[in-house]
Amino acid sequence: MAETKPVDLRSDTVTKPTPGMWQAITEAELGDDVYGEDPSVNALEAEVAALFGHEAALFAPTGSMANQIALQLVAPRASELLCDADAHIVTYEMGAAAALGGISTRTWPAAGGSLDPDVVAAMIRPRGPYVVATEAIAVEQTHNRAGGEVIPLATLERLRQIADEAGLALHCDGARIWNAHVADGVPLSSYGALFETLSVCLSKGLGTPAGSLVVGSAERIAEGRVIRKRLGGGMRQAGVLGAAGRYAIANHIERLADDHARAARLADALAPFGVVSGSVRTNMVVLDLTNAPLDAPALDAAARDGGVLVSVLSARRVRLVTHLDLDDASIDRAIDVLVRILKG
Amino acid sequence: MAETKPVDLRSDTVTKPTPGMWQAITEAELGDDVYGEDPSVNALEAEVAALFGHEAALFAPTGSMANQIALQLVAPRASELLCDADAHIVTYEMGAAAALGGISTRTWPAAGGSLDPDVVAAMIRPRGPYVVATEAIAVEQTHNRAGGEVIPLATLERLRQIADEAGLALHCDGARIWNAHVADGVPLSSYGALFETLSVCLSKGLGTPAGSLVVGSAERIAEGRVIRKRLGGGMRQAGVLGAAGRYAIANHIERLADDHARAARLADALAPFGVVSGSVRTNMVVLDLTNAPLDAPALDAAARDGGVLVSVLSARRVRLVTHLDLDDASIDRAIDVLVRILKG
Amino acid sequence: MAETKPVDLRSDTVTKPTPGMWQAITEAELGDDVYGEDPSVNALEAEVAALFGHEAALFAPTGSMANQIALQLVAPRASELLCDADAHIVTYEMGAAAALGGISTRTWPAAGGSLDPDVVAAMIRPRGPYVVATEAIAVEQTHNRAGGEVIPLATLERLRQIADEAGLALHCDGARIWNAHVADGVPLSSYGALFETLSVCLSKGLGTPAGSLVVGSAERIAEGRVIRKRLGGGMRQAGVLGAAGRYAIANHIERLADDHARAARLADALAPFGVVSGSVRTNMVVLDLTNAPLDAPALDAAARDGGVLVSVLSARRVRLVTHLDLDDASIDRAIDVLVRILKG
Amino acid sequence: MAETKPVDLRSDTVTKPTPGMWQAITEAELGDDVYGEDPSVNALEAEVAALFGHEAALFAPTGSMANQIALQLVAPRASELLCDADAHIVTYEMGAAAALGGISTRTWPAAGGSLDPDVVAAMIRPRGPYVVATEAIAVEQTHNRAGGEVIPLATLERLRQIADEAGLALHCDGARIWNAHVADGVPLSSYGALFETLSVCLSKGLGTPAGSLVVGSAERIAEGRVIRKRLGGGMRQAGVLGAAGRYAIANHIERLADDHARAARLADALAPFGVVSGSVRTNMVVLDLTNAPLDAPALDAAARDGGVLVSVLSARRVRLVTHLDLDDASIDRAIDVLVRILKG
Repeated sequence: MAETKPVDLRSDTVTKPTPGMWQAITEAELGDDVYGEDPSVNALEAEVAALFGHEAALFAPTGSMANQIALQLVAPRASELLCDADAHIVTYEMGAAAALGGISTRTWPAAGGSLDPDVVAAMIRPRGPYVVATEAIAVEQTHNRAGGEVIPLATLERLRQIADEAGLALHCDGARIWNAHVADGVPLSSYGALFETLSVCLSKGLGTPAGSLVVGSAERIAEGRVIRKRLGGGMRQAGVLGAAGRYAIANHIERLADDHARAARLADALAPFGVVSGSVRTNMVVLDLTNAPLDAPALDAAARDGGVLVSVLSARRVRLVTHLDLDDASIDRAIDVLVRILKG
Repeated sequence: MAETKPVDLRSDTVTKPTPGMWQAITEAELGDDVYGEDPSVNALEAEVAALFGHEAALFAPTGSMANQIALQLVAPRASELLCDADAHIVTYEMGAAAALGGISTRTWPAAGGSLDPDVVAAMIRPRGPYVVATEAIAVEQTHNRAGGEVIPLATLERLRQIADEAGLALHCDGARIWNAHVADGVPLSSYGALFETLSVCLSKGLGTPAGSLVVGSAERIAEGRVIRKRLGGGMRQAGVLGAAGRYAIANHIERLADDHARAARLADALAPFGVVSGSVRTNMVVLDLTNAPLDAPALDAAARDGGVLVSVLSARRVRLVTHLDLDDASIDRAIDVLVRILKG
Repeated sequence: MAETKPVDLRSDTVTKPTPGMWQAITEAELGDDVYGEDPSVNALEAEVAALFGHEAALFAPTGSMANQIALQLVAPRASELLCDADAHIVTYEMGAAAALGGISTRTWPAAGGSLDPDVVAAMIRPRGPYVVATEAIAVEQTHNRAGGEVIPLATLERLRQIADEAGLALHCDGARIWNAHVADGVPLSSYGALFETLSVCLSKGLGTPAGSLVVGSAERIAEGRVIRKRLGGGMRQAGVLGAAGRYAIANHIERLADDHARAARLADALAPFGVVSGSVRTNMVVLDLTNAPLDAPALDAAARDGGVLVSVLSARRVRLVTHLDLDDASIDRAIDVLVRILKG
Repeated sequence: MAETKPVDLRSDTVTKPTPGMWQAITEAELGDDVYGEDPSVNALEAEVAALFGHEAALFAPTGSMANQIALQLVAPRASELLCDADAHIVTYEMGAAAALGGISTRTWPAAGGSLDPDVVAAMIRPRGPYVVATEAIAVEQTHNRAGGEVIPLATLERLRQIADEAGLALHCDGARIWNAHVADGVPLSSYGALFETLSVCLSKGLGTPAGSLVVGSAERIAEGRVIRKRLGGGMRQAGVLGAAGRYAIANHIERLADDHARAARLADALAPFGVVSGSVRTNMVVLDLTNAPLDAPALDAAARDGGVLVSVLSARRVRLVTHLDLDDASIDRAIDVLVRILKG
């Protein structure tokens, strides 16, 4: 019933396993992953490493842990990490980089989540005994708080040059890098070639219950395994989630184009109200309600009454996310409800 | 085939889901647990909290994370935690208490893993500006490195008194508290009443793929939820594991008596060789090979050749653990192999 | 001899005690400050607290330690602190806020070191379980890397309002707040009224060998005393430095006007070369060599050959600082040398 | 007057500069030590390094900071450090090793502060992915809470062997190593040869207002300089204290024999009451009041009334320390007062 199951546009994290994924889970070969003996996890790690052209990968229970493991690999305690001021790693990870990794973050606002290479170059502090040494740069592809924006490959390549010139590591928070790959047609291995470490997520657009991976060199991943255990991420028969991940990698990447098309349709329908912020190239639509008749909490409440769930980013910004559990009919319903609200 | 599937006595973490557990997993109602909306996890948390007579509980991917969340709840950064020098929290958790929580640990060897209350009382440092303030004490029930020893209820009650007198918190690493409950017949709620926080594990004797819980007051657990997110333990559709946990709580506690009986049978068979260390009251047998014809690595290798996997604790100590995936025939096979080895 | 003693414009930290200060040092009453028994330190702490209208103050060996004590007082571990991207606390303190305090910093470039209150307001993250909570804002008065710029009182007052509205603490890195006081004529107590904590330095413009203070409420300072001991700043007969501090407070504040006048004279002499960056209102002159015939390292080397020491801030920026050990003749000499270099 | 100046036996930290030391201070050549330009500090560092046969040394404001710098040099974040449960580093340094360095400490009680090499050997955890890696061992010479006990050279040599066999570093908290040198006649260089790092203190028996040094290899000390700055220990004209240190090194080491003789005289006078604990070989006497007519706080109060200050270690233990500011007459007075109290 429509009244019992709202159209949930809050996040692509809310999806539930499909029948095919359930089958993969129950047929999974399991083992003890702390001993490196879970066949499903081992296969998943090998497959994902190969996709990005790296030597190794490491399964982690969440995207936050995958990011934090990677940050500790590229930015030693007391060193400095540069990233944009709205990055997931300095927003939604509860201060973990500093609190758990002792990593100092220096940030600045970046339009569309896309770091300006010249600004990055100017921010880098030299190594030495007087100032904190910059050791790493992090980017986010696609960028969550910027509304799923895709950072152009050329920008990433320029950042790689800058990192190389200064001897820094480059990390990609690639929780939704699958969406960038589908939107821009850039091979995953082309992205992989640019970064010392990437985190990639299975439980957002790809639709598994939980799970992310850190991708990198064999040496870094071996060290990451110890960091994962310290953080409490060394699960035993993790293949229950690993099998879901393998299924998602095999079946749910290219279908992200459907999510993108649905987000575009949402944006087109709301565009006449002058509330759509930025471009809409992946599975997110950010509404800027500055000139709308109601603010973000009010729209949130009104939408909820109409059976549509949205995510409040700030007093005047709302985010809508399409995903695996939505079909065209859900989007139609969401459009109906939101248009009615914005008409006032 | 026996030759392809060894008798795995390394740990009770190696078990795989039973058919009933698989059914529970695939029938699980799921939701987004970061938003507090996973019905299976919510039910599990409520059930486990009730078992221990506490207000609330929090699901975590591993026992290490459950412990570290609890330690951060009871021992503020830069305060001191007292525990025995062989406790899981200062051995197998990769220095997390200090590295992630900034907690200072002062320890001492405790025979059988059972803290001597008088020694604890003498260790406590007063609060003030000159010495580090002791803020918490941790015990481990049953005690892993002591070979599954059960700390007597009277000892725990005396520690509670000492903690109360000094205004300290008491944490129980209860990864295997189910085994203590079955061995000593002490109700779980009687244990629960003694501690500010407990961690309890679903993936050891209880046999789920992964998962543990922190148990405590509603206020502490709310704060623990933030700590869990920071550590990277906030999974989305965690009910996949939560449903397994509910099944295990309902079906796998009392059957631990079988594991205990099998461990006792193992110990009885090996006792003539003078290698059984301590009492064998739960699901572990520790062999002390000081007077045996071979050391721990040699026994490990010989057993492996015979299709039996054991765990090396140190140069002369080996651990054997019984669990859900072993039956009487497996134990017979293990006895055959080990007796042959010890006969030299 | 002029040739043996260069004109040292690198920093106001290089000054040596005057005869009057030496006398104060050798006549100092001493005691054990870890026990709170050093009369010179106690008097200094009371005097400085009174100057800023606060209840208490705490002596620390350096400005960095004073800042880090204050930051730990206002920003709990794992919370977020906002400051400009060029602040001393995220530049020269070697990552201490994150590495030692577990504090997450979110920053952005601020022209002239002066935080735009609207930007600050937009940066604040709400408390809650999903994003890192902003807990404090830090400003720097005068601003070191901005060339000794004075933040206008009205800006600070607006930041206070914003902090109050969001329930945040406001810290002032006031290492050179004495210079702001002299330049703008704002009473120290008017500054003091705006901040939960201030750090103030005795060894820069005020000319003591070493020493800073944290200023705040009695409760915060009591906690700060413990933090100081943990950081290794609890010196015994600290009155050796405390007495120098008392002398400096009594004799060296108002004379900062001389340093300011000398910096202005330097700036006037170099202005024709189009290299003076920003206003020169206190004791610093920053040269921007973008359009000059030589870059910063080259000017540094050439000046050193001429017996003038300067500080290189970046490839094209150089800083000149006036202080207690310089007189008009030194400035004349520096002008001669620098003008000759800039003429090419 | 006796009534205005008590006999202060609380600690050897309470001493004030002698006239000779004052002269050295006021004649000190100064410079900016953050830039490595303070001639007095540079000379002190070179002299102390040479005494212990090491390449380099680093001045620090306190013994706590010297220890913490050294611990961070020998025990990486998240590694394990072994020391006795009463060591200064896990007692009086406010949890700094864990809170600031992320170092995990595993401890155990050691009679007389002297680590039993066999116990140490058994405590060491191997490196690897499953348990926290032991990386360093710390000893304290002489041992403060053990009452100034001297660890025999043979014990230290055996610990060195054990450390070598396991590839561990060995640190010496040598705040009072001067007393051990004088008591046992072991050359400082013989001690120096045994340790990767030592901390040595100028402000205890040697009588300067403040200051300690870390001693080690040139590479470690260079890294220690960065750690010192991060901790807030990079003072500017530190030569004010450095000159006092040079004077103390030249003049106050051998005279520690007087302090030892006075402590022995105190102990002899109190021995008949059965309260003297352990041997009295250096400048400390610990009284165990278990069988005395009054407890430690009562003795503390009664002594204070009589003009004698002592230090309470626990409910039944009191510490008396002799030092540079006491002469034979002071000791006579202390004996009078304490004997009268103990007679009841």
